[in-house]
Amino acid sequence: MAKSEKISEAVVRRLPIYLRYLSYLQQVGVTTVSSQQMGKNLDINPAQIRKDLAAFGDFGKKGIGYDVNYLVEKIRQILKLDQEIRVALVGAGHLGHAISNYNAFLKDQIRIAAIFDSDPAKQGKQIAGITIQPLEELKETVKERHIRLAIITVPAAAAQSVADLLIEAGIEGILNFAPTTIRTEKEVRIHYADVTSSLQSLAYYLT
Amino acid sequence: MAKSEKISEAVVRRLPIYLRYLSYLQQVGVTTVSSQQMGKNLDINPAQIRKDLAAFGDFGKKGIGYDVNYLVEKIRQILKLDQEIRVALVGAGHLGHAISNYNAFLKDQIRIAAIFDSDPAKQGKQIAGITIQPLEELKETVKERHIRLAIITVPAAAAQSVADLLIEAGIEGILNFAPTTIRTEKEVRIHYADVTSSLQSLAYYLT
Repeated sequence: MAKSEKISEAVVRRLPIYLRYLSYLQQVGVTTVSSQQMGKNLDINPAQIRKDLAAFGDFGKKGIGYDVNYLVEKIRQILKLDQEIRVALVGAGHLGHAISNYNAFLKDQIRIAAIFDSDPAKQGKQIAGITIQPLEELKETVKERHIRLAIITVPAAAAQSVADLLIEAGIEGILNFAPTTIRTEKEVRIHYADVTSSLQSLAYYLT
Repeated sequence: MAKSEKISEAVVRRLPIYLRYLSYLQQVGVTTVSSQQMGKNLDINPAQIRKDLAAFGDFGKKGIGYDVNYLVEKIRQILKLDQEIRVALVGAGHLGHAISNYNAFLKDQIRIAAIFDSDPAKQGKQIAGITIQPLEELKETVKERHIRLAIITVPAAAAQSVADLLIEAGIEGILNFAPTTIRTEKEVRIHYADVTSSLQSLAYYLT
C-alpha cells in the first residue's frame, strides 16, 4: 500500500463516494462491478477510478471488475472506518440539529459523541439523545470521551474562536460548515463543507 | 484561458476556497498575497495553488505574488459568479431551513429562488421570505423563474425521485445532501455534500 502522504486529497475525497456507491450495490445484491459501470453511475472517468483504487492495492480483475464486498472492506480500512471515531459538534442551530439527528440514524463508526452551544437556553436540552453542553466544558469532554474530530456549525463570526478552542482541546480534524476560512498554526486537518463553496464549484459547470 | 473541459474537478473545487480566502483578505485590506502565504493559511501546497491558477491565466508576479482584487475578480469570472444563478431547494427540514436562512444573508449571485416540500403542513409557510411550495409546482416554477441549480435536502429514500423531477424540469446541476447516490442518464452535474462523506475523508487523515 502506498504511503498515506502520497495520496492526494482529491483521491481521499473520492473514496467515500466510491464507498457509498459500493455499499448501495451491496444492499441491492450486486457482487461485481466494473470501473466503467462505476464511472457511469458516479460521473467520474473510469480511468480515474482505476487509478485511484490502484494507489492502494491491486483490487480489480481485468475484464471482470471489482469484487464489491472486498472493495467495501478495503476502502473502509483505508479510510480508517474499521474503528470508532468520535466527533464533537459545536453549534446547535438548524444545521447542527439536522446533522445530529441524521447522524443518530447512521450505522457508521463515525459518530457524534458530544454537542456544544454557547446559548444557555439550549444547554441541557437534548438532540438525538445527546445533551447540549456549554463551551466551557468542551476541553474536558473532548479529552474524557476521546473525541478526535469536530464539526463546526456556528455562525461565521464565531468559527475561528470555536476552532481555536477545539484545537487547544486536541481535536485532529475539523469539518467546518461556517462560511469562513479557519487559520491555525497547528497540524490540524480542516475541511470545508460550506454550501456556498459547493454551489460555486457547481456553477462552474453551467453552460 | 484553458478550455473548461480540461480543468479537473479537484481544481474547480479548490477555486471557491481560494475565493473565500481572497475575499477575506480584501475585507481586511490586504492587496497582495503570495502562493506561500495562501498555502500556509489554506493548508494547500503553494505549488498546487500556482498550478491551479496558472491553468486559467498568468495571474501572479514572481517575487511579488497575486493582486488580491484582480484575482478575486478573475476567479468570480471563472466560476461564472458574475451572473445571477437561481437555485431551488427541495426539503424544508432542519437542514433545508439552515441552508435557506443562511443563504438569505449572503451577498452572492447564487441565491435560493424557490423552496419545495412534499409535506402539506409545511407548504404555504415561509423560510427567509420564500414560500414553501408543493412538489407538484416544481417543474413549472423552475422554468418560470429560470432556476438552474438545485439543492436536495430530503431524506435518502426520497432523493432519487426528487432528482428525477428536478432533472426533468431542466435543472443543470444538483448539490445533494442526502446520503445516497443519485443516478441519471442525462448530462446533469451532481455534487455530493453529505456529512458522512466529508467526515470519512477527514478520518483518513487521523494518525
